[in-house]
Amino acid sequence: MSQKIFKNAIIGQSGGPSAAINATLSGIIRGLNADSRVEKIYGMLNGISGVIDDRIIEIGSRFKGEDDYRLLECTPSSGLGTCRVKLPDVSDETFYEKIFAVLDKYEIGYFLLIGGNDSMDTVDKLSAYAKAHEKATVVVGVSKTIDNDLILADHTPGYGSAAKYIGTVCSEIAGDCAVYTTKAVTIVEIMGRDAGWLTLASGLGRLSGMPCPDLIYLPEVVFDYDSFLESVKKELEKKPNVVVAVSEGVKTADGKYAGEGCQTGAVDIFGHKYLAGVAKALEQYVKEKIGCKVRAVELNLPQRCAGHCLSATDIRESVELGKSAARAALDGKNCCFAIITRLPGAEYKTGTDTVPVHLVANKVKAVPREYITEDGSNVTDEALRYVAPLTEGEVEIPYKFGAPQRFTF
Amino acid sequence: MSQKIFKNAIIGQSGGPSAAINATLSGIIRGLNADSRVEKIYGMLNGISGVIDDRIIEIGSRFKGEDDYRLLECTPSSGLGTCRVKLPDVSDETFYEKIFAVLDKYEIGYFLLIGGNDSMDTVDKLSAYAKAHEKATVVVGVSKTIDNDLILADHTPGYGSAAKYIGTVCSEIAGDCAVYTTKAVTIVEIMGRDAGWLTLASGLGRLSGMPCPDLIYLPEVVFDYDSFLESVKKELEKKPNVVVAVSEGVKTADGKYAGEGCQTGAVDIFGHKYLAGVAKALEQYVKEKIGCKVRAVELNLPQRCAGHCLSATDIRESVELGKSAARAALDGKNCCFAIITRLPGAEYKTGTDTVPVHLVANKVKAVPREYITEDGSNVTDEALRYVAPLTEGEVEIPYKFGAPQRFTF
Repeated sequence: MSQKIFKNAIIGQSGGPSAAINATLSGIIRGLNADSRVEKIYGMLNGISGVIDDRIIEIGSRFKGEDDYRLLECTPSSGLGTCRVKLPDVSDETFYEKIFAVLDKYEIGYFLLIGGNDSMDTVDKLSAYAKAHEKATVVVGVSKTIDNDLILADHTPGYGSAAKYIGTVCSEIAGDCAVYTTKAVTIVEIMGRDAGWLTLASGLGRLSGMPCPDLIYLPEVVFDYDSFLESVKKELEKKPNVVVAVSEGVKTADGKYAGEGCQTGAVDIFGHKYLAGVAKALEQYVKEKIGCKVRAVELNLPQRCAGHCLSATDIRESVELGKSAARAALDGKNCCFAIITRLPGAEYKTGTDTVPVHLVANKVKAVPREYITEDGSNVTDEALRYVAPLTEGEVEIPYKFGAPQRFTF
Repeated sequence: MSQKIFKNAIIGQSGGPSAAINATLSGIIRGLNADSRVEKIYGMLNGISGVIDDRIIEIGSRFKGEDDYRLLECTPSSGLGTCRVKLPDVSDETFYEKIFAVLDKYEIGYFLLIGGNDSMDTVDKLSAYAKAHEKATVVVGVSKTIDNDLILADHTPGYGSAAKYIGTVCSEIAGDCAVYTTKAVTIVEIMGRDAGWLTLASGLGRLSGMPCPDLIYLPEVVFDYDSFLESVKKELEKKPNVVVAVSEGVKTADGKYAGEGCQTGAVDIFGHKYLAGVAKALEQYVKEKIGCKVRAVELNLPQRCAGHCLSATDIRESVELGKSAARAALDGKNCCFAIITRLPGAEYKTGTDTVPVHLVANKVKAVPREYITEDGSNVTDEALRYVAPLTEGEVEIPYKFGAPQRFTF
């Protein structure tokens, strides 16, 4: 089998959507379309499920010029659809032979999957199987996750835009809350199951003296109800309106999620608890203990799909990463994973690199302790200076009748 | 007293903040600063409370050039702070004499208050008292409310930007939900206590074939749990992901808010119930009845303070309205209320007008029944075509380190 040379490529998107995952897709298509070794470019619909069920469409010829790429690059959420599927162990030959039979049918020489740490489990298994069984397909993973919790990468595509949306909206909320003289506490719940990267960005306004949350709680520090209450009280002595940002993933000393009382207890396919409601739990707590007006605000889905608040830096880097992943696939780098790196020096400059995918799969990069204040109730300016350059630059998006226009496959 | 001629002006902001209330403030300052009959321009801090407590600052000289006005115009939320204060009956002379004593001290000839239907109660009482007691102060109201529920006006400043944010985010959420193949219902809760204008805007994506909610429920139609469930089931037969937009103010046939079970029962100073949670209530209901994945998303505060998603039309009109209110005050039009009107003709063109404030105070303009489909589960294209022009045009806002920059007094 190893003598066969397949000239077609297939691309998929996996895991949670983001505002930049289509920019990476566009970068890969740009890279593949520009190379004469590639004949057809296919898209798998809904990630690996699309291969399993043979739901595959030709996409390369859809891109006639710069306008098509640009529209895809500012379209949030996985254009090809996504899935949350955990593949069986590589010993399950029946399963994997079925997958490679589909890939062989479409003469796929290059398989690229854009995804986060969970999705890289898929890439890890597929590429290991391809290698062990001398398949004609090079399998490459391309990093993505708004959570920014991939190890080895400086940061991940989609994080910069999510951070910008969170920094922007939290600053606007803090500005909004400041207009009243009534004593009030506003608790903003931010995504990030295991790592506080997204919640950290809520403080971005501080770097330019703009309004921002007074207290910021990340899951990297044990959450203590008593000291939380003390901190809120202390802030209320300074001004009537206190804004708190809290990660959905904060846990108390017993290892339970701080909002556990309000949880459904459901878990997703990777065993992660379905989270909601830490802000609601804290709202009740503050109401009970302080008795002032309290409001819970969940930033919710827009954190990962706010295409109307993109970071130009994030989109540019995501496209570049896609191109570099296409190069890696064409160079036959099976089992590799394309990531963004930060170049040394005072000026913000990034590059791309590839690392073995098994080093990354199923691992989580936490926010370093030195990015969090000693008492655990805020983030440091150094942390904010790490995030700020990732959010730089605005992207003009096309609007029609009050709604942003998007690319559809 | 009527012979006295005071050459100073005072401006205040009242009621809920919006993304355009500072644009109106800027328009008033532009208008007053350009007129030689005005000497000093003051701002009352936190609306009428600022006059009662003598918290008044000079603001006119802060505006040296176009850049200052422009920054204020793209700064969301009441720059001078706001309040929710209900004034006593005009028969309470002690109270009103105290207020006019403060206004006399600052030699206020022109008093302008920007606010919605509740705030116009304040303007109504103050102007009636001023007229009856021959005060030297002209009292003028200037329309504002994201709710768009003021009678006589075609629409209100702040509504266009809020509608744009809601249309944009709902389209993004619908696009995001479409990436999965798992059966799921997403319920988006939108502001609007008594009128469905904001919720209506959730459907804007439809006019350009973009994703948008499949079902839209406004408070103008009685909410029926059974027919809601039937409609959701019917949509689920067509596709796996159903998105529902619902106004926080929808009520069941018994006159109770549909989410009543989840309510706190607290009321604000005007007797309005403090609302939260209709989406949560429907989430529980759909989970119980259908058993699929269900998610509640409350758009919450960003609806009224998303300065990063302004409508250029809204901001332009808000500035023009401010200028026209300044002219009305200078022309001595006591007791008047400045509103936006739509000029006849196929092309979208607006003007400004003044109406007696007592006609507007404490009244609510509902969405007309013909803007809602017969079965009450959606809005018509005609309704969307009413809103769309109000959302046209983008405003470039200054960003620094991931946060929008704002004007501060």
